[in-house]
Amino acid sequence: MERFDLGRRLFAEWLGTLLLLAVVVGSGIMGETLSGGNVALALLGNTIPTGAILVVLIVIFGPISGAHFNPAVTLSFLIRREIGLRDAGLYLLAQVAGGICGAMLAHGMFEEPIVAASMKERTGFSQWLGEFTATFGLVATILGCLRFRPELVPYGVGLFITAGYWFTSSTSFANPAVTIARSLTDTFSGIMPLHMPAFIVAQLIGAVVATLLLGWLVKSRQPAEAESDTG
Amino acid sequence: MERFDLGRRLFAEWLGTLLLLAVVVGSGIMGETLSGGNVALALLGNTIPTGAILVVLIVIFGPISGAHFNPAVTLSFLIRREIGLRDAGLYLLAQVAGGICGAMLAHGMFEEPIVAASMKERTGFSQWLGEFTATFGLVATILGCLRFRPELVPYGVGLFITAGYWFTSSTSFANPAVTIARSLTDTFSGIMPLHMPAFIVAQLIGAVVATLLLGWLVKSRQPAEAESDTG
Amino acid sequence: MERFDLGRRLFAEWLGTLLLLAVVVGSGIMGETLSGGNVALALLGNTIPTGAILVVLIVIFGPISGAHFNPAVTLSFLIRREIGLRDAGLYLLAQVAGGICGAMLAHGMFEEPIVAASMKERTGFSQWLGEFTATFGLVATILGCLRFRPELVPYGVGLFITAGYWFTSSTSFANPAVTIARSLTDTFSGIMPLHMPAFIVAQLIGAVVATLLLGWLVKSRQPAEAESDTG
Amino acid sequence: MERFDLGRRLFAEWLGTLLLLAVVVGSGIMGETLSGGNVALALLGNTIPTGAILVVLIVIFGPISGAHFNPAVTLSFLIRREIGLRDAGLYLLAQVAGGICGAMLAHGMFEEPIVAASMKERTGFSQWLGEFTATFGLVATILGCLRFRPELVPYGVGLFITAGYWFTSSTSFANPAVTIARSLTDTFSGIMPLHMPAFIVAQLIGAVVATLLLGWLVKSRQPAEAESDTG
Repeated sequence: MERFDLGRRLFAEWLGTLLLLAVVVGSGIMGETLSGGNVALALLGNTIPTGAILVVLIVIFGPISGAHFNPAVTLSFLIRREIGLRDAGLYLLAQVAGGICGAMLAHGMFEEPIVAASMKERTGFSQWLGEFTATFGLVATILGCLRFRPELVPYGVGLFITAGYWFTSSTSFANPAVTIARSLTDTFSGIMPLHMPAFIVAQLIGAVVATLLLGWLVKSRQPAEAESDTG
Repeated sequence: MERFDLGRRLFAEWLGTLLLLAVVVGSGIMGETLSGGNVALALLGNTIPTGAILVVLIVIFGPISGAHFNPAVTLSFLIRREIGLRDAGLYLLAQVAGGICGAMLAHGMFEEPIVAASMKERTGFSQWLGEFTATFGLVATILGCLRFRPELVPYGVGLFITAGYWFTSSTSFANPAVTIARSLTDTFSGIMPLHMPAFIVAQLIGAVVATLLLGWLVKSRQPAEAESDTG
Repeated sequence: MERFDLGRRLFAEWLGTLLLLAVVVGSGIMGETLSGGNVALALLGNTIPTGAILVVLIVIFGPISGAHFNPAVTLSFLIRREIGLRDAGLYLLAQVAGGICGAMLAHGMFEEPIVAASMKERTGFSQWLGEFTATFGLVATILGCLRFRPELVPYGVGLFITAGYWFTSSTSFANPAVTIARSLTDTFSGIMPLHMPAFIVAQLIGAVVATLLLGWLVKSRQPAEAESDTG
Repeated sequence: MERFDLGRRLFAEWLGTLLLLAVVVGSGIMGETLSGGNVALALLGNTIPTGAILVVLIVIFGPISGAHFNPAVTLSFLIRREIGLRDAGLYLLAQVAGGICGAMLAHGMFEEPIVAASMKERTGFSQWLGEFTATFGLVATILGCLRFRPELVPYGVGLFITAGYWFTSSTSFANPAVTIARSLTDTFSGIMPLHMPAFIVAQLIGAVVATLLLGWLVKSRQPAEAESDTG
């Protein structure tokens, strides 16, 4: 396993989150513009690119920074002591900055105002349950893949978010940095700044629960136990 | 090959089936809500997430419990003596309980009644033939992949069900636990409780036929035979 | 490499082609029925399942029979002397019989007449050019993957046909057994029996050209040549 | 690593670019024709085949020529001194010739005029920013995959372009040879010849920036550094 210096790792988190948000926001605008008012088509045009770019970004940035792009994921690794507190804090800053820059890039490409507070309402218990479920599932996907088939993390994440856009009522933001950035776009993928904090709380709870639960679930029997069991 | 204790295996079956049903029912609601009455779009919005989540769930739970999530699959392994009768019975309970919890989670996320008997008619010989074909194909996919390329089981299952949603008249329930859970949702993916038993019978017949047929088909020549053949 | 006896190989060709046609014809019916007259949606509902099932069928039947399911592919292997004339003839019979049975199964699942001559016109030079291109590309895909990354043949074929449904004017039948079977369904995926022979001729020409061209293209330099070149 | 003679390599570049353009232009025509005026559906029918064929073409031609199919990619390898100037020039010619032939093949399959100057306007800073972003991302994808998981280059490119069709305002031409060929089709995927040069300039800048940036980013610590860091 190669190691990369902190500067490169933070740059990878920043650039990866930037490109992720450019895709989330950009394809949301494209989908809504072209779909003639059919929201299912707009969401499909938002889902497929998001799932696709996640695979790519995790393949190319994963070996450098771990490809978190997501403070909830960084929190999970912090709990697991696989990242230190200082680095986790710096990752958070890089992710939030990257997310905002990515939304701005999408706006630049589509001639939208560079930043604009979203007017889109996304609130209520059912949506918070959606965010809890989405982030629980995302972190479970990452930890499960890392445990059993680490080479599949990029595909696992891409496919989980593909599903998440459709099976959760909140369309699976599942990421505080993404949520902050999406509060700054008044387009298809936006969320009112006022509704942002509850989303982030639900996400962090989902990440913590998944980290603890998976930590328990994936422990296999000790050789000694296994032996006595079959004996 | 690691071994996991029975509690963890049953928990994996429960949680996996729960998440599967959350996706099947949840994306069905989302698809129908957003598609503006175009059923093909709604089914597409139901298909893509279902195929995607199956890949993820089998990757992360497969090494723990085998990732059956499906009494028809458990029956196939029982016939093949790869699971014992007691464990198979417990798997069945975990799968049915998980499926029902998953439908309830989807209802919670979408502000639907927590459980509601489905009013959707799905009956008649052609649909039963669909369920037979779907479960036959699903079990053949699993056994064929396990025989030749076991690392591809998650992809095989995800892709088969993706096809199944469209090529079988019943949209490929192919799973008694899924069928039970879907009788408790009065949304896009539901099935009237009255029409459930015949679906399950067709599924179990499909699973048995596939198990026997594949058991015969994938036997390669004995070295001795092969030698005499080329001799 | 295991070997399977001729009976099993022919059964695999028959069953694989049967399932392929069940998907092609069945998802065509489903797509057309649900799409409310939007042909792009119907074709999408036909494309995704066809690409998906091809991956599955080649994974599970490839190690048994080679998973040709297609007389044009069998012809290519005959030219390459990787199958004998007698076996190729038997493969052809199994493929055509499987294809017809698959169309019948789809009809049974969707309450269509078990066989019905198609009324769908598919003729003219531009469509024949489409079939030539489609079969050329399909055979090139198979031979190229086999040469460089044989484990990717299932994905290569599934992805090529996914593209083929959209980039060729004929929607890429690319398979004489499929063409015969599709002449017997008066649904979305059908072709008038009268227009069938020209499709098959174009397909066979495409297969022969691809076999010869790829045979030349993928030959790397001899070590001696390479040495003298760098010397 | 096998080596192929220059003739075969150029032929692979020509044929691969030809097939790529046949798919881009052909599926654009098919999508627009069938979608009943819904541009999101037309773009979806253009996206899925393009992503799919890229995977296939890179798998089968990658080992022969490197599967550039793209002067911007060839420029990147020229900067990295992985291809010589003479070969790069010949690659360029093969790519442009292949692209034009591919558009002509698509026109032949769909009964369009064999070549026709496009009337489609694609201009303005936001679209040029789109092309810069698209080509930056494409080259970053290729170099990142090559660095960490070279066997995933075909998937990385296919998935990146799938995303690119939706998240960039210009729909990610990202390729000067493709841009030239698309100026010669007056169909869905066309671009007015007058607007072509600015697209190509933006693409080349994106490729250069990505090459330099990734060259810096993916350098891991020297063993000595790493040691002193942990010491």
